[in-house]
Amino acid sequence: MWEQSRAGSNPAPGTSPMETSLKSLIQAFHQGQVRALAKLITVVENGNRARETVLKEIFPKTGHAHRIGITGPPGAGKSTIVDHLALALTERGHRVAILAVDPTSPFTGGALLGDRHRMVRASQQGVFIRSLATRGSLGGLSEATPFVADLLDAFGFDVILIETVGVGQSELDIITASDTVVVVLVPESGDSIQAMKAGLMEIADIFVINKYDREGSQRFRNELESILGRMPQKNDWVIPILPMVAIRGEGIPDLAEQIKRHWQYLHDSGKFTEKRRQRILDEIERTAKDRLWRRIERQIGSFIEQQGLDQILQGKADPYTFVEELIRKVEEERDQR
Amino acid sequence: MWEQSRAGSNPAPGTSPMETSLKSLIQAFHQGQVRALAKLITVVENGNRARETVLKEIFPKTGHAHRIGITGPPGAGKSTIVDHLALALTERGHRVAILAVDPTSPFTGGALLGDRHRMVRASQQGVFIRSLATRGSLGGLSEATPFVADLLDAFGFDVILIETVGVGQSELDIITASDTVVVVLVPESGDSIQAMKAGLMEIADIFVINKYDREGSQRFRNELESILGRMPQKNDWVIPILPMVAIRGEGIPDLAEQIKRHWQYLHDSGKFTEKRRQRILDEIERTAKDRLWRRIERQIGSFIEQQGLDQILQGKADPYTFVEELIRKVEEERDQR
Repeated sequence: MWEQSRAGSNPAPGTSPMETSLKSLIQAFHQGQVRALAKLITVVENGNRARETVLKEIFPKTGHAHRIGITGPPGAGKSTIVDHLALALTERGHRVAILAVDPTSPFTGGALLGDRHRMVRASQQGVFIRSLATRGSLGGLSEATPFVADLLDAFGFDVILIETVGVGQSELDIITASDTVVVVLVPESGDSIQAMKAGLMEIADIFVINKYDREGSQRFRNELESILGRMPQKNDWVIPILPMVAIRGEGIPDLAEQIKRHWQYLHDSGKFTEKRRQRILDEIERTAKDRLWRRIERQIGSFIEQQGLDQILQGKADPYTFVEELIRKVEEERDQR
Repeated sequence: MWEQSRAGSNPAPGTSPMETSLKSLIQAFHQGQVRALAKLITVVENGNRARETVLKEIFPKTGHAHRIGITGPPGAGKSTIVDHLALALTERGHRVAILAVDPTSPFTGGALLGDRHRMVRASQQGVFIRSLATRGSLGGLSEATPFVADLLDAFGFDVILIETVGVGQSELDIITASDTVVVVLVPESGDSIQAMKAGLMEIADIFVINKYDREGSQRFRNELESILGRMPQKNDWVIPILPMVAIRGEGIPDLAEQIKRHWQYLHDSGKFTEKRRQRILDEIERTAKDRLWRRIERQIGSFIEQQGLDQILQGKADPYTFVEELIRKVEEERDQR
């Protein structure tokens, strides 16, 4: 924690070689080079000060893409759906990118499931596919997801499919990152899926019941309709339930159609701007916190190195007074300069 | 977001009635009044500036309790285990508290599952039980969990059982909040449980296989042992796998014993202090960020009210430059005073 953003705490007096290469990457990005996009995604994923430089440069070009979150329990067939959907949208003339968020071990850093190889057809048709590792919360969205989506948006993709290999834990994250949320369910639902559904119910703009050729599909659909009917309606959008057999491509055109309808609804109702506004406000708060923290981080680090935490560990001091004193000290030093 | 910590941004010149009542609550807390504890938990859960006041006051008394996280997929029997375990530890002379973290709808704010009624036996034996709503991440730990644990610790409970009705998404949270992590699994595991396990494998200090009277238990145990055997060993602690039929209380004494052994191990190896140190460092970072943010929050709010976000929404400005300018402005004003 204390070792991290060293680079950020050490502003270079001139222009470093790293900054130069970052600038030429951004230039290549603006020229539409896919390799530059891929490299900048890595920069943004790593999330130090360079991230901010990149985001600042590309921000004016964002705000055009339709960000579509595809979520649901493991085994529901999300990857297959995303693969087919990407193709269907490409055929309709869209430029489509896929962000697949893998559950990752926080300890090994390696992906446990790799979905890229499953999306074979899409990748052969020029769809841009990128896996993001989750950091910090297993199976949830990567913290970098909204920023990578910004990059794809600025690059000119007008549809971004965000697939979370999740189990209903990242509801708020996916709402924040997406304009439209598609929740994929399957007819057979055990105890655990039942519990997950609770969280998934309230975030869906569109429901898909995949593997609809299986037994109990109609019953499951009735159940879902009845639960939906009992939920308070949040707005004018009536949530559709779409049967699907994704492996055979059945139901995909319907899904593409409903996604288009929702996009229209978001614009007609002003909700698209509202959502974008909220994302910008969140980003302002996050950036301000980071910047303010960065300015005292080094001092806190060295203060702890000098004094240690012994007083606090022994209960003779507390973290809150420590922070108070430290901020005061940092500001006095600044005033004296 | 911008409306929230108003109370924090408005420091009262004298002592407000609220502060007075907070002080008397803290006094009653130090005298051991359970009602004061319950009320302070609510204060800490709500998480505005009053939280910090409370935590600062009680901090010197923390650092003694054993925090035990109990996690696993829904339906694994966690509540039953926690109920029995609490009793077993009470009988051994411990003062036990239970924190049950409910999955909560981020929209309704209401709990979807209530576990308190299931822990009947424990509550009759004087065990303190409290449900926490999760906010922000469904099914994960409440953001307030570590702070509520601090309160219980300072109140004199020496064992705190933290039960998460989770599905493998809050791994890092529960590691941070607990000294010992007990992962509960059941023999029958479908596709989805399989996927969840991936995340649960690496955080366990102790494994429990509950419902061990069911078919396939021995096979499941062999499977688990074989997976564990293939994982790199992180330290000297050998992770035990405990068979259990919690509903009949079978296996509970074993679990109590292993928990005690792990507590001993944490102290002998110095890991207890290490963990506590990290928690304090995290808290220092969180507190500093909050404090620094609070000082400019009001100004950002009024700045946005005046100017709106139109320039940014239209791509003529960006959030990063906005923050930069704002911080500069706030500091110039401060310098002039």
